[in-house]
Amino acid sequence: MTPVMRPYLSATSSFASGKSSPRDFLELCLGDLETWEPKIGAFVAVNLAGARAAADASTKRWRDGKPLSPIDGMPVGIKDIIETFDMPTEQGSPLFKGYATQRDAAAVAALREAGAVVVGKTVTTEFASTTARDTRNPWDLSRTPGGSSSGSAAAVAAGILPAALGTQVIGSTIRPASYCGCYGFRPTVGAINRGGSYDYLSQSSTGTIAATLPEAWQVAYEIAIRVGGDPGFPGLFGPARAPAAQKPGRLAFIETSGWALASPGARRAMEDALKRLAAAGVELRTRASDPKVAAVEDAIVAARQRSGDINAWESRWPLNTYRDRDASKLSDHALDRLKQAEAMTIEDYRGLIAERARARALYAALASDMPATISLSAPAAAPVGISWTGEPACTVHASYLGIPAISLPLLRDEGLPLGLQVVGFEHRDADAFATAAWIEHALA
Amino acid sequence: MTPVMRPYLSATSSFASGKSSPRDFLELCLGDLETWEPKIGAFVAVNLAGARAAADASTKRWRDGKPLSPIDGMPVGIKDIIETFDMPTEQGSPLFKGYATQRDAAAVAALREAGAVVVGKTVTTEFASTTARDTRNPWDLSRTPGGSSSGSAAAVAAGILPAALGTQVIGSTIRPASYCGCYGFRPTVGAINRGGSYDYLSQSSTGTIAATLPEAWQVAYEIAIRVGGDPGFPGLFGPARAPAAQKPGRLAFIETSGWALASPGARRAMEDALKRLAAAGVELRTRASDPKVAAVEDAIVAARQRSGDINAWESRWPLNTYRDRDASKLSDHALDRLKQAEAMTIEDYRGLIAERARARALYAALASDMPATISLSAPAAAPVGISWTGEPACTVHASYLGIPAISLPLLRDEGLPLGLQVVGFEHRDADAFATAAWIEHALA
Repeated sequence: MTPVMRPYLSATSSFASGKSSPRDFLELCLGDLETWEPKIGAFVAVNLAGARAAADASTKRWRDGKPLSPIDGMPVGIKDIIETFDMPTEQGSPLFKGYATQRDAAAVAALREAGAVVVGKTVTTEFASTTARDTRNPWDLSRTPGGSSSGSAAAVAAGILPAALGTQVIGSTIRPASYCGCYGFRPTVGAINRGGSYDYLSQSSTGTIAATLPEAWQVAYEIAIRVGGDPGFPGLFGPARAPAAQKPGRLAFIETSGWALASPGARRAMEDALKRLAAAGVELRTRASDPKVAAVEDAIVAARQRSGDINAWESRWPLNTYRDRDASKLSDHALDRLKQAEAMTIEDYRGLIAERARARALYAALASDMPATISLSAPAAAPVGISWTGEPACTVHASYLGIPAISLPLLRDEGLPLGLQVVGFEHRDADAFATAAWIEHALA
Repeated sequence: MTPVMRPYLSATSSFASGKSSPRDFLELCLGDLETWEPKIGAFVAVNLAGARAAADASTKRWRDGKPLSPIDGMPVGIKDIIETFDMPTEQGSPLFKGYATQRDAAAVAALREAGAVVVGKTVTTEFASTTARDTRNPWDLSRTPGGSSSGSAAAVAAGILPAALGTQVIGSTIRPASYCGCYGFRPTVGAINRGGSYDYLSQSSTGTIAATLPEAWQVAYEIAIRVGGDPGFPGLFGPARAPAAQKPGRLAFIETSGWALASPGARRAMEDALKRLAAAGVELRTRASDPKVAAVEDAIVAARQRSGDINAWESRWPLNTYRDRDASKLSDHALDRLKQAEAMTIEDYRGLIAERARARALYAALASDMPATISLSAPAAAPVGISWTGEPACTVHASYLGIPAISLPLLRDEGLPLGLQVVGFEHRDADAFATAAWIEHALA
């Protein structure tokens, strides 16, 4: 059974006339939920009664010609590190089994305010880090959907939801989007308010996984205008509808440390895409042709290691309190990370974030030359097995650099989805979308 | 009954010999708790069994010559917007009556790791904002202790605790310290990890209220080295013991909008202090003598209004989810703030933080000329009545500018305590302490 995504924005045109409705749309989604969920295990919890009531209210608004936003009535999933008043927030951890906070996170409150229909909480790895739960990839049930936003990507890929929230501190949005053939968007750090998300890391951001590129934008936009970015940050910049395609005069191909790990199929697919972009008239810069690109490649060689160190220190709390409460409910990975953190000093951390700031400045130096850079979203299709969520070598640089990244499901490897990644510049998320829209068209 | 503070660091010298002990010290504190608490209402919850057990463990460590830190055994209070695993976190709101999160906030976890003895949760105004609870000032029970860190200041002033945590986004640490005659320290924004504190505002920081200046430093320092600052921030900079007194060659007197409101007694007290500092050889700059000081005064005239606007937008969430849950349990102030936020746009917010950044740059321009600036901590002694926590005109500039502030209980008004405020520069909290230590000595 081949999974088919279910776009929402295009469906809304028939809502005003009553030919269709958000409730009808939701029931189609719930049909796919029934079919797919037993196979893929994308959800921790669902609130179907709540979703149906919300869809009915939305149906009335569309019929009255008064939708709250373009995504009014859109069924959405919420990664289970993000609070919802009506469902627990278990964070992929047995320590938080049934944990209920009785409030919505900022992003969730904004989505409801925009009329979106919250269907359920989607599976996350433990604390959005490494230890996988049992979600499977709808393209091949023997494979991981990627992580940590595992359930969000699997549910969107299977057509259960047109969009879902993810978060990314290493590769947690772009990687599962790549493996599951979805559109993924990890915004500039701070662009989406993380209030009420159990995600405290300085290079993490809340993003979207969606059935189409415009939906990946729209969901993020509707959140940002209602609750802004993280406090003190200016929030997501860009237009009220997804940026129109804009042909880039120039792009840089960033190999990242993932290129050396790329499978033959992934390598062929990317090389072919690069050829077609060049043939369409885009000037492509590489580490060989542009010293500024080479400087970026050098600055991100150790991004994985350094991101791990930064995340460890920043996870010292709350992992210490969780260990004190019940260490037996933490994974070995979590206990190891805590041990690593406890061997670090605040001076170590200061050195790490100073180095990260230098790498960010090197990347930002490209911003005057081009609207975005491109890379693979992952070095290969989803690996077989569900205990490892896959290699993050292609995604970690965008997290480390604090910049926006988009995964487009345009490539294939082993007959399975593989993402082409468009990585933008700080606060220029909209330019990355305009470039991505053009690339999607050019490679179609 | 005149309240007397109870310093801890000086008491520890007799712990190794067994002549005294952390447990003995705690019992003295609990004696004052019994005497004072019925009068002042500083606590929301206490865990006396837990505190006694922690004090006994500390007693053993001191006897073994292995204290975990200089504050091992120090009884501390935790402002009730900050999570503790053993007590609820009610945030000064009936909506959160009995709300238990089963974990310690970052600052609390660090304090316990340093051996500190968590005695209880101290009263905060509703969501650390405006609406007062019923705490009274131990210097005059008919007066407010100030807010929002009301209970922390009242408990320290009454000798129940040598130190307690506060937070400040407008004046919530410095003002109650001033009114209660304590030492108060609001660090540079981001210097103390706010994880697990229900405090999401971009110009807020967690700080300390203490019985002595070195204790205000030590408690903050012990937290910062264990859990750092807010993620992405370098954390509190400075030495392992409170900075030694250092005579400033030059200081600026910042009037703030509070000077025009100063009571005759406060004005006399400050003018006298300025005279004595000048007589001791400190060059004093003012808005009249230094255009850079005048530029700062101009830039902070609207700090109160703009801080209120910034805080409103940043409080849109979670106040919206609280209103949806049960609006009847929110104060009128909270509902008004939410209404204000809902009339704002993200563009309004961007304009506000851009303007704040410009004001910060103007203040930072003074940093090469002097180690700190000075002001009143409040325009008068604590006002009569407990429904209003007092005028923030003297404190809001430090919050708006994101810089460290210290309140020294060196002045008097109406025979009651009044603070002299030492305001430093970003990340130069230690210089502000060194200056404050010298001022304390010079004015003694």
